[in-house]
Amino acid sequence: MRNRIIIPLIITLLAVPAGFAYVHWSKGGTGTGLYSRYWSPDPVQGYWDPANFYQSPDSVQGIFAGEQCVQCHEGITPGIVNDWRASRHAQSEETVYCNDCHGNDHQQLRLPTPDVCGNCHAKQHDEFRDEARYGFPSHVLAMERAVDAKHFVDKPKAEVQSCVQCHSVATKCDSCHSRHRFDAAEARRPEACITCHSGPPHPDDETYFASAHGKLYLAEGNNWDWSKPLTKGNYKAPTCAYCHMDNGRHQVAEKSLWKFGLREINPHTSKNQVLRKKWIKLCSDCHEEEKARQWLTELDQERKQAWQKLYMAEAILKDLRSDRLLQPAAGERPPYPMDWLDSLWPRERIGFFEGQASVFYNVSAIERDYFEMWYFDNLGAYKSAAHGNPAGVEAGHRKMVASLDRIETQANELRKLSQAEKKAEIRIKPSGDLWMKGAYTDYNREHN
Amino acid sequence: MRNRIIIPLIITLLAVPAGFAYVHWSKGGTGTGLYSRYWSPDPVQGYWDPANFYQSPDSVQGIFAGEQCVQCHEGITPGIVNDWRASRHAQSEETVYCNDCHGNDHQQLRLPTPDVCGNCHAKQHDEFRDEARYGFPSHVLAMERAVDAKHFVDKPKAEVQSCVQCHSVATKCDSCHSRHRFDAAEARRPEACITCHSGPPHPDDETYFASAHGKLYLAEGNNWDWSKPLTKGNYKAPTCAYCHMDNGRHQVAEKSLWKFGLREINPHTSKNQVLRKKWIKLCSDCHEEEKARQWLTELDQERKQAWQKLYMAEAILKDLRSDRLLQPAAGERPPYPMDWLDSLWPRERIGFFEGQASVFYNVSAIERDYFEMWYFDNLGAYKSAAHGNPAGVEAGHRKMVASLDRIETQANELRKLSQAEKKAEIRIKPSGDLWMKGAYTDYNREHN
Amino acid sequence: MRNRIIIPLIITLLAVPAGFAYVHWSKGGTGTGLYSRYWSPDPVQGYWDPANFYQSPDSVQGIFAGEQCVQCHEGITPGIVNDWRASRHAQSEETVYCNDCHGNDHQQLRLPTPDVCGNCHAKQHDEFRDEARYGFPSHVLAMERAVDAKHFVDKPKAEVQSCVQCHSVATKCDSCHSRHRFDAAEARRPEACITCHSGPPHPDDETYFASAHGKLYLAEGNNWDWSKPLTKGNYKAPTCAYCHMDNGRHQVAEKSLWKFGLREINPHTSKNQVLRKKWIKLCSDCHEEEKARQWLTELDQERKQAWQKLYMAEAILKDLRSDRLLQPAAGERPPYPMDWLDSLWPRERIGFFEGQASVFYNVSAIERDYFEMWYFDNLGAYKSAAHGNPAGVEAGHRKMVASLDRIETQANELRKLSQAEKKAEIRIKPSGDLWMKGAYTDYNREHN
Repeated sequence: MRNRIIIPLIITLLAVPAGFAYVHWSKGGTGTGLYSRYWSPDPVQGYWDPANFYQSPDSVQGIFAGEQCVQCHEGITPGIVNDWRASRHAQSEETVYCNDCHGNDHQQLRLPTPDVCGNCHAKQHDEFRDEARYGFPSHVLAMERAVDAKHFVDKPKAEVQSCVQCHSVATKCDSCHSRHRFDAAEARRPEACITCHSGPPHPDDETYFASAHGKLYLAEGNNWDWSKPLTKGNYKAPTCAYCHMDNGRHQVAEKSLWKFGLREINPHTSKNQVLRKKWIKLCSDCHEEEKARQWLTELDQERKQAWQKLYMAEAILKDLRSDRLLQPAAGERPPYPMDWLDSLWPRERIGFFEGQASVFYNVSAIERDYFEMWYFDNLGAYKSAAHGNPAGVEAGHRKMVASLDRIETQANELRKLSQAEKKAEIRIKPSGDLWMKGAYTDYNREHN
Repeated sequence: MRNRIIIPLIITLLAVPAGFAYVHWSKGGTGTGLYSRYWSPDPVQGYWDPANFYQSPDSVQGIFAGEQCVQCHEGITPGIVNDWRASRHAQSEETVYCNDCHGNDHQQLRLPTPDVCGNCHAKQHDEFRDEARYGFPSHVLAMERAVDAKHFVDKPKAEVQSCVQCHSVATKCDSCHSRHRFDAAEARRPEACITCHSGPPHPDDETYFASAHGKLYLAEGNNWDWSKPLTKGNYKAPTCAYCHMDNGRHQVAEKSLWKFGLREINPHTSKNQVLRKKWIKLCSDCHEEEKARQWLTELDQERKQAWQKLYMAEAILKDLRSDRLLQPAAGERPPYPMDWLDSLWPRERIGFFEGQASVFYNVSAIERDYFEMWYFDNLGAYKSAAHGNPAGVEAGHRKMVASLDRIETQANELRKLSQAEKKAEIRIKPSGDLWMKGAYTDYNREHN
Repeated sequence: MRNRIIIPLIITLLAVPAGFAYVHWSKGGTGTGLYSRYWSPDPVQGYWDPANFYQSPDSVQGIFAGEQCVQCHEGITPGIVNDWRASRHAQSEETVYCNDCHGNDHQQLRLPTPDVCGNCHAKQHDEFRDEARYGFPSHVLAMERAVDAKHFVDKPKAEVQSCVQCHSVATKCDSCHSRHRFDAAEARRPEACITCHSGPPHPDDETYFASAHGKLYLAEGNNWDWSKPLTKGNYKAPTCAYCHMDNGRHQVAEKSLWKFGLREINPHTSKNQVLRKKWIKLCSDCHEEEKARQWLTELDQERKQAWQKLYMAEAILKDLRSDRLLQPAAGERPPYPMDWLDSLWPRERIGFFEGQASVFYNVSAIERDYFEMWYFDNLGAYKSAAHGNPAGVEAGHRKMVASLDRIETQANELRKLSQAEKKAEIRIKPSGDLWMKGAYTDYNREHN
């Protein structure tokens, strides 16, 4: 009887610290993330994740005061000095000099992390960190979740760098407030967001600019007074930050109702009811409350229709898998990265519900169509609906239907071909070795 | 002999009112359009078609004078009050107040229809209505023709809403003159058009901005004096409205020479000769007359080449149909929406010349390719040619040729597979039931 | 012994002038380029290549002085007169009048060629011509190399016009300095470039605007002082011209390090080491030198990864060709344009390494996929990496991988189908005649 309690207790007491120790160990390589022992990033990562990888230049030696930095850099890089001079850092009574953020030993320079900025801008920094409560997607967890991803181990580093370039929003503040002006006015404008929030799978840029809100901004925004805070009545049309960071709060996660459209969610849970009220209150800054409510309902409907299509495609693929008609089969593909079980017992994983992004490399055309239907067409439709871009909703759903048509046609042909082979007693396996030696395989794992 | 005249006369006398009565009856359901008995739109439609579906909020009770509206809304929705204050409505001698357009009983508020605006702006309203003479496509018929479309019956309502959001240009004036500033200057800028005139199949936005005209606007437009009328010499480069609404006439249909590129037209009919003269006169505001003429000729050539490619694709599909190689066949698809004859005797319809947009749902991959070649690649090429975007012409024709290559390859494989099946005496019909229960079927008809 | 020297010498002495004579003869047709005897362009070409094809209007007769031109055109085309009045041409002490560039005989008017502009702007003209040293791609050779292309012979003229519209950057100066303002300030802005440098395969426009540099321009560029020269410290962010024409030098070829991404190049040849230093120096106007170096290295890596994927696809296609599984085969396609050897002995050419763009018409779907993977996805990834648009790098590589998946799937199916045919002893050749009579064949050759 006592054993029944003590043995599990001992196991737990051993397992919990062992788990912590394993994570600590695995993050302790020269690389980054949970798989830091398997890959280390290219040097350019020093700019995306300065706390961990930045190497100070060793060309100049000496300890410098702020005025000295400015004096010298006025000749070397006058543009950044101009920007600083125009900033509140330079113009406020207590001047914030270069060395206050970068340090004053030129061979030990640092690129400022959010913590450095947070020394003065505590409120904004606290709000930014508060996003972590909401999990991912969020800004504050963007880098951590990225580099903890298994598939970065198999992905060529040059491509990984394009991913973390945006995910660096977590590790430095100049993604939105560009250096060295660090202007709040800049970050209130939609352009502050678009370098990262554009293109599939998150066409926030395109869908906003193509909305009724966006067109007003495009036509008149240059004449607006961007020094005003993001509150009711100050702007003729909302920008990204007006809705997602209302009143300038540096926390974008708390209105994340449909969670990016990545999975089907119930928009009416008690938690989501709270989020809905926040949205309706915000929209009511300009619009009739009832209109805001109807708009949310329309979004619910859009999501429901999108998932109906996605589930149809999923069913077709599952049937093909049951009948062993997908090629390459699980065993013909490299094991799922860093998955020990998968190396021993390869499993077929289809799409978003069974796998992750990485499972969509080294797959057949029909699986690829399904992935793109989910990750690009579906999310494009969602963003369009949310941002008020009708042509984007049409395009997203039209593309999903086109994918459905193509997926079903391919499925039919695979079945026919299989029957012809059986009848003719052909027993071939012409699946190439592309997938085993392909673009995203353990080849990279060994060379990263 | 008398019967020869009298009987047809009686039949006609009966049939004409019967037709009117049937249309009247069929439009009399709770929904909208000719099929109003089969589907009713979501509540958000109240904003796109206020005359028919807007529900006034019942939260506030009372009869209010204009000053009272302003006083109260200054606190509730200050942005729209700011816009109104900046408008001619507020600044002219005879102030136009909220209640002049919305009514003064808060529980009976209305959203202004074009007729309401037309009470004062008669010239513009008359010009706008005059478009009806030119048929569709046109602004004034946009909503009516949309909701009279059969395929809306089978289409999920959430998607239909994305269609009518733009087609509401027919049912309210704030698509172009955004509320509550209602600025002529705004509507002179290209942004006024882009929320609807963007994306496939009508990339007017993209093709204009990528033209020599558009680049001048993008670089300098913010410094132009937009209070000037759209006449010769007032603007360094034309905008959408300069060419399509010259001198500010609210009638865009009368220069519609190639009719959107949807069908091959003869550009030299006597009617089109008149349109050509109008274009040449307009282009001559800035350019040599001969250049304008050559430009139109080049457009004729572009269209001719596009249709040559489309007809090649059509021929391939017709051959496949003759040989019964298209799957799903007509009988394997849900009947063409609201088509009684089609329910009894399903017909195979291929593309633009035999069907309409709706026939492109629930079809095989090769038919889908053909549809997209016609509706997106072809129209993209056309818009690019018309707006002076050379890369778009190249892209459109290149995509059409790629589609041709893919269509022919698929046709070859369908033929080969069919022969292999015959030889092996396989008699299977593996066409799935996706198309019968698919995304755009009578399932929606029952649930709309 | 003497013969050994004399005979080759005589042959050479005959062959060299014969070659010159042939090229001279072949360029002497009514058309344009090396194949001028096979096709002549549409009249609109007069605007793209005025030196060769412009026809002066014959409507107005007379010899006019500059003031007379202005007086008359003030009424006819006031916009261009406004532009001229705002230009340095009108405002400098020695006024440059219309007739100085266009001539004064109205029936013999000319459109100014670069040589005309070069009469005054010798420095810029010389720099522009200096590009020729670097070969193609370059601005100065753009028209010549285009019209010397074989495939223009088989291409419908309406499409060729869309090509030469941009390639006319070689034959007139108003591609960048739009008439009649001819403003240096205009050409410093990125919009000056985008009409041509946009869209696949050279999304310079899209990738710049989506970069950190571009977003600063979009947000603030309208307030910058564009009268300043493109030198260190004058602009908060670089534009196209700042980097590619630094200090205003009219020569964009000398920093062309990766040569557009069209072929795999060794980025560390001694010549490229020189170019790298130029880039690093330029980036150091604002950035740490080491960062610039790392950025170039990252670009090297991106290119290497792209080529790894392209070579995989190439290998798959070569295997299919060896096994005679590509349809249409070489002999089923029209001969490679103007290639006598190819007419006699048709060769299968796959992709960029064995053919040119023109070989990608009239090909099977799998070859088309390969072409698009190379020409659009690959080049899109390259431009994105070079311009600092991370989403574009991701998109380019993702599309390349999707193409690889689809190419391998198609290859597998072609192999299976072929085996089923063999087993069933089917000997058919269902390859259609699309490719022989297709969109880009000798049909056009005969009708151009």
